[in-house]
Amino acid sequence: MRPKDQTKYNAIIEASLNLVKELGFTDISISKIAKQANISPATIYIHFRNREDLFTKLYIKIRTDLSTEILQGINDKMDIKQIFKSIWNNSFTYYLNHPDSIIYREKFEQTPMMENIDPKDFKLYNYVNNLFQRGIKEQIIKDLPIPLLTSFAFIPIITLLNFHFRGAINMDKTNIVEACEIAWNTIKISDSAQ
Amino acid sequence: MRPKDQTKYNAIIEASLNLVKELGFTDISISKIAKQANISPATIYIHFRNREDLFTKLYIKIRTDLSTEILQGINDKMDIKQIFKSIWNNSFTYYLNHPDSIIYREKFEQTPMMENIDPKDFKLYNYVNNLFQRGIKEQIIKDLPIPLLTSFAFIPIITLLNFHFRGAINMDKTNIVEACEIAWNTIKISDSAQ
Repeated sequence: MRPKDQTKYNAIIEASLNLVKELGFTDISISKIAKQANISPATIYIHFRNREDLFTKLYIKIRTDLSTEILQGINDKMDIKQIFKSIWNNSFTYYLNHPDSIIYREKFEQTPMMENIDPKDFKLYNYVNNLFQRGIKEQIIKDLPIPLLTSFAFIPIITLLNFHFRGAINMDKTNIVEACEIAWNTIKISDSAQ
Repeated sequence: MRPKDQTKYNAIIEASLNLVKELGFTDISISKIAKQANISPATIYIHFRNREDLFTKLYIKIRTDLSTEILQGINDKMDIKQIFKSIWNNSFTYYLNHPDSIIYREKFEQTPMMENIDPKDFKLYNYVNNLFQRGIKEQIIKDLPIPLLTSFAFIPIITLLNFHFRGAINMDKTNIVEACEIAWNTIKISDSAQ
């Protein structure tokens, strides 16, 4: 992409995030996005086939960016607990710094467009799955279905940040450390050396 | 309400739940609800001032029904752990049997209409708050902000049921018991006699 195209592309992304936050998916047309991004609808059609294509690609972009940022700094010398805690803290920080991305992700996942998404396409999803499977095999992590482990270990991040942004809780350093410890304890076997 | 009015009232509720599930909030008009409920728009205006009034009252109804069903069978002879587990299991069962109510609640909570809702108006909210405060005082429950405790103890119920309805996990008896135990462990002090 030329730098000028990149600028326009970013404006489309920005406008879509803002509009979905304000209006949800049903009320947004390509022309509304174009207006908000201050470009012509034709420019949007250079990058995207239609509304659904734009929304789906934006969702994929969010999860791909998330994967890259979260897996940064994780290496094979770390043990399972260290890797889990890094992923947890990186996820928390990512969403703290990108509140519009959580809102977008949550709203998108409640639409039928979600049927075209395969979570296996995302590096982070596969990485966490493999980590949990290895942890189960090494008897560090509870031998339970992975969606059950995820529901307790990772999903509360979204809730905590929603509470944080609404002012119901202040997720300061102490609360983040406490929450990460609780998350780890939901999945680890209690009498484990970890 | 006369029995005939009650029937119509129920039809309005039913139609609204179905339409919100399919379309979200932005695309629904009073006339659409009337059509789906097979009644005249005028009948809706007997019960509700407008769209927003209807949606807000339906949200309050869902949380009030939930409160009543969930607090059933709980009494002062039970200890904190027993009360927590009863509330947890009753919540799980309620939502398992009323999937449309979870979807409605989740979607409603992402709209600005939520600003008119005070959680303190709901019996269950106050009951759980008092239970947690008592547990903290008696050193059974961790001394952490209540929204943090709730995020780990109760919110995963919604995620687990979403996974269950999508077929990602089968929340059979064993998984429910395991999940309830994990939920309890997220809030209890580890070396507690409980």
